[in-house]
Amino acid sequence: MARVLTPQAEDFPRWYQDVLAKAQLAENGPVRGTMVIRPWAFGIWELVQRGLDDRIKASGARNAYFPLLIPESYLRREADHIEGFSPELAVVTVGGGKELAEPAVVRPTSETIINASLARWISSYRDLPFKINQWANVVRWELRPRLLLRTSEFLWQEGHTAHASCEEAHSFALEILEDTYAATMERDLAIPVWRGRKTDREKFAGAVVSWSCEGLMRDGKALQMGTSHELGQNFANAFDIAYTDERGTRQRPWQTSWGASTRLLGAVIMVHGDDQGLRLPPRVAPVQVVVLVAREGEGVFEQASRLVADLTRAGVRAELDPHTDVSVGRRIVEWELRGVPVRVELGPRDIASGQVPVALRAEAVKTTHALDGLAQAMPAILETQQDELLRQARAFRDRLTSRVTTIGEAIEQARVGAARVPWATLGLDGERRLLEAGISVRCLVREDGALVDDPEAGGVDAIVARAY
Amino acid sequence: MARVLTPQAEDFPRWYQDVLAKAQLAENGPVRGTMVIRPWAFGIWELVQRGLDDRIKASGARNAYFPLLIPESYLRREADHIEGFSPELAVVTVGGGKELAEPAVVRPTSETIINASLARWISSYRDLPFKINQWANVVRWELRPRLLLRTSEFLWQEGHTAHASCEEAHSFALEILEDTYAATMERDLAIPVWRGRKTDREKFAGAVVSWSCEGLMRDGKALQMGTSHELGQNFANAFDIAYTDERGTRQRPWQTSWGASTRLLGAVIMVHGDDQGLRLPPRVAPVQVVVLVAREGEGVFEQASRLVADLTRAGVRAELDPHTDVSVGRRIVEWELRGVPVRVELGPRDIASGQVPVALRAEAVKTTHALDGLAQAMPAILETQQDELLRQARAFRDRLTSRVTTIGEAIEQARVGAARVPWATLGLDGERRLLEAGISVRCLVREDGALVDDPEAGGVDAIVARAY
Repeated sequence: MARVLTPQAEDFPRWYQDVLAKAQLAENGPVRGTMVIRPWAFGIWELVQRGLDDRIKASGARNAYFPLLIPESYLRREADHIEGFSPELAVVTVGGGKELAEPAVVRPTSETIINASLARWISSYRDLPFKINQWANVVRWELRPRLLLRTSEFLWQEGHTAHASCEEAHSFALEILEDTYAATMERDLAIPVWRGRKTDREKFAGAVVSWSCEGLMRDGKALQMGTSHELGQNFANAFDIAYTDERGTRQRPWQTSWGASTRLLGAVIMVHGDDQGLRLPPRVAPVQVVVLVAREGEGVFEQASRLVADLTRAGVRAELDPHTDVSVGRRIVEWELRGVPVRVELGPRDIASGQVPVALRAEAVKTTHALDGLAQAMPAILETQQDELLRQARAFRDRLTSRVTTIGEAIEQARVGAARVPWATLGLDGERRLLEAGISVRCLVREDGALVDDPEAGGVDAIVARAY
Repeated sequence: MARVLTPQAEDFPRWYQDVLAKAQLAENGPVRGTMVIRPWAFGIWELVQRGLDDRIKASGARNAYFPLLIPESYLRREADHIEGFSPELAVVTVGGGKELAEPAVVRPTSETIINASLARWISSYRDLPFKINQWANVVRWELRPRLLLRTSEFLWQEGHTAHASCEEAHSFALEILEDTYAATMERDLAIPVWRGRKTDREKFAGAVVSWSCEGLMRDGKALQMGTSHELGQNFANAFDIAYTDERGTRQRPWQTSWGASTRLLGAVIMVHGDDQGLRLPPRVAPVQVVVLVAREGEGVFEQASRLVADLTRAGVRAELDPHTDVSVGRRIVEWELRGVPVRVELGPRDIASGQVPVALRAEAVKTTHALDGLAQAMPAILETQQDELLRQARAFRDRLTSRVTTIGEAIEQARVGAARVPWATLGLDGERRLLEAGISVRCLVREDGALVDDPEAGGVDAIVARAY
């Protein structure tokens, strides 16, 4: 087969750039670090959004929209927050042809402006828990931008909640981590993720505790795919949010915030992609099945059109490829590049025999299936392909993750993948030594699978790896 | 009934402010002219978006995303475009703590940055027609902001297409105007609209011809609700977009762009709202039916819950109001304020009799209906309410629109509503005289209902009114 992309084993970053360009996924915008998300990638994003949005709504949050522009002074109200975000800000100084009295920051995240509203909206314990979410663009100036992974502007959702107790905020932050983020990543994106606690060094600017979902890419580097923060009363203090409890006492609520972004597209590409291109999990594939007219002939086009109609009726996102003026080989390369999970090829002989070739991208196999009943069978075939990608990604991650017991071994292991090392062995000092070697603690997890309540307790492991 | 809002007849702008605040729809952001869209209004917007997005996709356009920040120099490439938008720009001059070499404009619209991409993506006649859409926020500095109608930041979709011929671009611009915009407005929002051609004075900065849909609000002022522009080859020239035609000749494509925004929420409020609050067309109502437990009693809560479940199964967006600790009257005021189309009230006696009160917001009537079979009957009831709102809005618009034959009569009629005056009578000079009186030509329409090909031909009327 002709070489379409730089092979992953030869140069992974180059492979990534190639697949972004050739599969028409994303490209650089003219302002440094910004990006254009092209229709094929945006179609994937729309499906990722749908899964996230349904789960966010199921958590009880409602969508709203807050302004892009935030007065600079708002960010200063929370000391850690402004310190963390200050180097990344884009600032509007001119509006309507005039210098602004107070510069406005293009939101890097919306804790400040949302909590300014919550201070007006929350007054009684009856208003709690208060759960809100927005889908928005944010801007964080990037010195080393990388398309879809680290860009000066990206799209995301950010959820913000207020609760009557610290415990409730804590358990809600974990609920989002598991039922919204991990569920979307594993079930929709077919990407296994570690759920864990961020170290103090890695936590969000303004948070008390940060939690994250971390995936392992095919080059052995980790990617933070979603974060959920316990904000304590930091922003409630900064923005004077208070409610009257059942006994008439004024109280500060406890808050959370949580976000996941277009970076998830980068994860889908880097976890499932191979040397032929993308491999899309059916649940987020804009086209799940392509019906390709391989060769023209009596009734072929009609049969192909009918199959597409039957697939659509069966709830499958199907597309017809009738372009017989382009060679079959070239079109197959194109559909594989775009990662469409199932390809059905139709020619006169296939129709005569009633048995048609069905190529499965996840398994890299071509089977045959009776044309009769194929549309009805397709949802189950797509499910097996979804499961297959998750299975492969799990096997890959297991292969590239090792338990180690010393810092030296952790550094060695991080050359190829992730290391799991006792946090008691590592500690703050070890974390610093790893950072010097370009390796970070992705998150802290427990031996027994529970989430880490106390990092200093026994049985806590650090997942360490190079990271995007 | 207690007075909840300033009556429309007393002070319409005040009524509008009241309903925005009391129904928790929108409020001002801290940076002048920006706004917060609260969950109830955003829920309406999500349904408006769904209807628009489905129709946009049916037109063949695919969604994508382009950067928020545009180099200032891009806007200068099309002379009319920069002249029109220059006074409204918000400009980022600092990024990542440093003064930028070239200031970046926060997009006021995206013709320039999108066409810079199209110049790379379009090279052959096979790439045409090219149809793309994005959902995005845009910023246009407003001196006299008004929530949801005219804000410094708003949300919208903007479609951009390129075609092989002027005729094709022309007919696509009109297809969007009718099949996407007018269809969404009339079928989903229950708002009748005039479709017409903008005068040269009112057209989009950079367009050859602009078309719009215009609605008439309850205070007799018009609102531009969506626009579709024929851009000719203006941007293709400015951004050097070219394709090779079938004969191998390099050609410039012909383009369109079209947008509709969160302003549509303002239209829904101002066309259907009354002195009790919003009246939502069922198709865009986040809650279509509220089942209100009026009084507690044996099995009432269970019956109410079962009805909500049955309604949900019947495809109805239904919500339970079990808050018997708040008086029935107060809750009814609240649900009417929020504009929920149908309210079912359940108490012990209603359940005993098997006949329940059903209040219809659009008709301001309370009927009774057998509890048995109510859920199954509800989709049809909602459809009659949808039709009823459109009928009322049409009757209102007809009542407030008059044909006149002189400029003086037009000025007189515009005190209360819209005037339809022959364009031949008006002309550029008359248009200027009207503007001095605070009245604008909303659009040009034809006597026979066809769209205006040639404004100077006979049988062309101008719709004139005060406008938002």
